[in-house]
Amino acid sequence: MELYFLGTGAGMPFKERNTSAVALRMEKSGGIWLFDCGEATQHQFLHSSLKLGKIKKIWVTHLHGDHIFGLPGLLGSRSFMQSEDDLTLYGPDGLDRFVSASLETSGTFLSYPLHIETIEDGCWYEFEHSRVLVKKLNHTVPSYGFRIEEKSRPPRLKADLLKKKGVLPGPLYNELKNGRDVTLESGEVLKSAHYLHKPEKGKTAAILGDTSPCEAAVELAKDADVLVHESTFSSQLKDHAEKFGHSTAMHAAHTARDANAKMLILTHISARYHKEESQILLDEAQPIFRNTYIANDFSSFKI
Amino acid sequence: MELYFLGTGAGMPFKERNTSAVALRMEKSGGIWLFDCGEATQHQFLHSSLKLGKIKKIWVTHLHGDHIFGLPGLLGSRSFMQSEDDLTLYGPDGLDRFVSASLETSGTFLSYPLHIETIEDGCWYEFEHSRVLVKKLNHTVPSYGFRIEEKSRPPRLKADLLKKKGVLPGPLYNELKNGRDVTLESGEVLKSAHYLHKPEKGKTAAILGDTSPCEAAVELAKDADVLVHESTFSSQLKDHAEKFGHSTAMHAAHTARDANAKMLILTHISARYHKEESQILLDEAQPIFRNTYIANDFSSFKI
Repeated sequence: MELYFLGTGAGMPFKERNTSAVALRMEKSGGIWLFDCGEATQHQFLHSSLKLGKIKKIWVTHLHGDHIFGLPGLLGSRSFMQSEDDLTLYGPDGLDRFVSASLETSGTFLSYPLHIETIEDGCWYEFEHSRVLVKKLNHTVPSYGFRIEEKSRPPRLKADLLKKKGVLPGPLYNELKNGRDVTLESGEVLKSAHYLHKPEKGKTAAILGDTSPCEAAVELAKDADVLVHESTFSSQLKDHAEKFGHSTAMHAAHTARDANAKMLILTHISARYHKEESQILLDEAQPIFRNTYIANDFSSFKI
Repeated sequence: MELYFLGTGAGMPFKERNTSAVALRMEKSGGIWLFDCGEATQHQFLHSSLKLGKIKKIWVTHLHGDHIFGLPGLLGSRSFMQSEDDLTLYGPDGLDRFVSASLETSGTFLSYPLHIETIEDGCWYEFEHSRVLVKKLNHTVPSYGFRIEEKSRPPRLKADLLKKKGVLPGPLYNELKNGRDVTLESGEVLKSAHYLHKPEKGKTAAILGDTSPCEAAVELAKDADVLVHESTFSSQLKDHAEKFGHSTAMHAAHTARDANAKMLILTHISARYHKEESQILLDEAQPIFRNTYIANDFSSFKI
């Protein structure tokens, strides 16, 4: 799993940080999942190694402009580049209206099938290599968080060992892979356990929309390998955060600690914290949750 | 009059050129008029000396995404910056639907009154210091061009000359300014003509949306000080231009020549012409219309 932050600012773009977007690349599925799509997210793609055509799903946490105004342009440009693969958007009620009005008014033709799913609190989405839990957070408009669980990978076969023994690829390999011992013509028994690597446990990421501290945030991040949490303000502006349904760095750290997450990445940073000043957010969070990082535009994290 | 090009590409953003937007600053009104607003136009403002709060009017040539997808974010950010001055959008039928759906779905509150006027072929807009003619061009969707005529400025008084004579500011100044001669107490007659600068003739700019060559384009640019014209392709792709309702550099030059315009600026350049290659557009236009320039992002032209 790898996270690429494309926009890490709050409210409106500024020179150092664009509005919200984070891309998740999961090794097994091969494609990119995008979480939120602030204006000029497609421009950020131009300055990264990511390709619009690789996006398979876009998850929208909530409908505030700094999280969705990049959608119509990105959808259009993905088409301009002749992509033909299906794309599915998942987002709150109303997303459909915004996307339809934008594409229809602008006469934007899409070269690929576009699906829009309306998310709801508590729903699960099941995919071949992963599953996603959606929970409603606590913001001024309906805002959601996502828990992305990669499925564990079945143990890989130690093919080298078998080849050394003179056992060549064939139906036997499948038997061993599926955990069944095998008897060779010579009478020798090959123990499946001996020829299998350890199973690879899937990773879990929790990626949250704008929110004040809430129980749902902790549930989504329970034992997660990484929690991506907004940190619009420092604790000095705690009242401001509460008034506008946001979190401070301290709030985010408490959620990560209570959830027993392994790593916390702070994003959605107010323009008042210039790059040097964002250190105060880290200084606030790390005494509560040591393994905390701040996302900048174009930061990437291997999970 | 000064033109600032903020986006000079066609169809979708690419590294060298953003999607369409050009700002016009007219000395007399003090504010900025924006023509089209492709995605990330507000980001281009961040890298220029222009301020969102100074925008008084936005003229939209047509509703293709590369000309309007920056509107919702720009309107929201202008509010985020506490602007209170009225803003009026002028654009084709349907603009209202796009803007309303975007602002309503995203819960974007505006701190200022927003007006939306639907433009039609042949209509005139009259303002204190200028007037604007709208004409329909020839594109795949309704696309319009604008002829912006600055009103001539009444002659300014040569106040220095009067002060040297010992005539101090007062009602006399107004008399002279209004073209009436004045008799001093000494009996001396001050000739108005002697104390007035030459009247300053207002400038005229024609700024056109996407279009194939058409009579309306020539009418809008008639004797204009500057014609801003799309030049999506070179003549090698003439058939392509016709098919998609666009112009080549040669088409634009013919329009400028036929209209007897004083200056031609080519914009809306296809991504296939990288900076060095865009010289072929100039090479094509200049033999037909010598005073031709190519706009790049952040180019400015004093008219």
